[in-house]
Amino acid sequence: MKRESIPPNVIRRLPRYLRTLEELLDGNVECVSSSQLGRRLNLTPSQIRQDFSCFGEFGQQGYGYNVVLLRDAVASILGIGSGYSAVLFGAGNLGHALLKNFGFAHYGCRVLAAFDVDPALVGSSLGEIPVYSVHEFAGFAAENRVDIAVLAVPREFALSTARYIADVGVGAIWNFTNAELRDINESLLVEDVHFSDSFLALSYYLSERQKQENG
Amino acid sequence: MKRESIPPNVIRRLPRYLRTLEELLDGNVECVSSSQLGRRLNLTPSQIRQDFSCFGEFGQQGYGYNVVLLRDAVASILGIGSGYSAVLFGAGNLGHALLKNFGFAHYGCRVLAAFDVDPALVGSSLGEIPVYSVHEFAGFAAENRVDIAVLAVPREFALSTARYIADVGVGAIWNFTNAELRDINESLLVEDVHFSDSFLALSYYLSERQKQENG
Repeated sequence: MKRESIPPNVIRRLPRYLRTLEELLDGNVECVSSSQLGRRLNLTPSQIRQDFSCFGEFGQQGYGYNVVLLRDAVASILGIGSGYSAVLFGAGNLGHALLKNFGFAHYGCRVLAAFDVDPALVGSSLGEIPVYSVHEFAGFAAENRVDIAVLAVPREFALSTARYIADVGVGAIWNFTNAELRDINESLLVEDVHFSDSFLALSYYLSERQKQENG
Repeated sequence: MKRESIPPNVIRRLPRYLRTLEELLDGNVECVSSSQLGRRLNLTPSQIRQDFSCFGEFGQQGYGYNVVLLRDAVASILGIGSGYSAVLFGAGNLGHALLKNFGFAHYGCRVLAAFDVDPALVGSSLGEIPVYSVHEFAGFAAENRVDIAVLAVPREFALSTARYIADVGVGAIWNFTNAELRDINESLLVEDVHFSDSFLALSYYLSERQKQENG
């Protein structure tokens, strides 16, 4: 395995591979070629073969890929099945929407609890997830393994909350605050969800189209 | 201008350039080299010069880039300042969170109204944004220019709502539903926000780190 050298671009494509393979499975497709995958993903077949070769040998030259095996391999590489547990910081609208709509369980992740500062929320629950006071988190983390903190607090509290999370010893933050958290400490993993990147791509394509329509 | 041939990867990097340039401006930085940008963005200086060359000539060889001019140029390429207007479909938690936290105005986009099917929401407002019945949308769109529909309805209603939006003549959907909308019609622009892609990247890095720690 030459895992150490996987380029970030390849890692970023893996979730798209997983999604596409799951769509194929939903359609009862058992076998897929790199050309077919390429058409669905807008990548060249050689790009796809090169990506998969970073992780070992999945393919049988000329026979295509077994969709189930490939899906399981990609899922395993992505850490699905590692049994991660997460907590949510910020039980407001966004946190609520994430708990309700994002399939944490589908990706093998269990959400243990939510934490908020609002006395009206503390003591309540979001679905089956209890909402505790933020101040209870250190004690909670001492008694429960917490791999990932989902940060959905208002932006002005992002940095202080992230520092607290890191101090308590959680190693990964899924950051929805649009605040810059890279410099908190070396070992903290931070993954940012930047809505703006997606919005601006749409804005770009819309503007290009309008330019074409206007000659 | 050779805009027709801009590769998708370059377009996807533009929002990151914009964000970085705005951070530099916040820090009163007036001039930046491709090396400095490269360090902040984890790209090589030659990659950055190559990206910018797709859009014309911003740089002065050996002098770096003027941050204000470069920011304005990137913003213009991204369609900021085109005066887009948007509507929101789905006034639930996610729609609410988007209206409250996403800076539509910062990207030059005006949100005109929200649409929902819930009688308890129709007639209310989210901040200053009125919530109308979904059935009122065709009439609304006949009287108001709507460039972008933000789709934040439950997944099971995604496809029917998207078809309705496209039939009414809106050309772009910002899709938060995780439903596949690519096949609705040829001319509809769809930009998906896939939370899972971001979550899985975090899961990957966490799993790689744990493997290293466990030897």
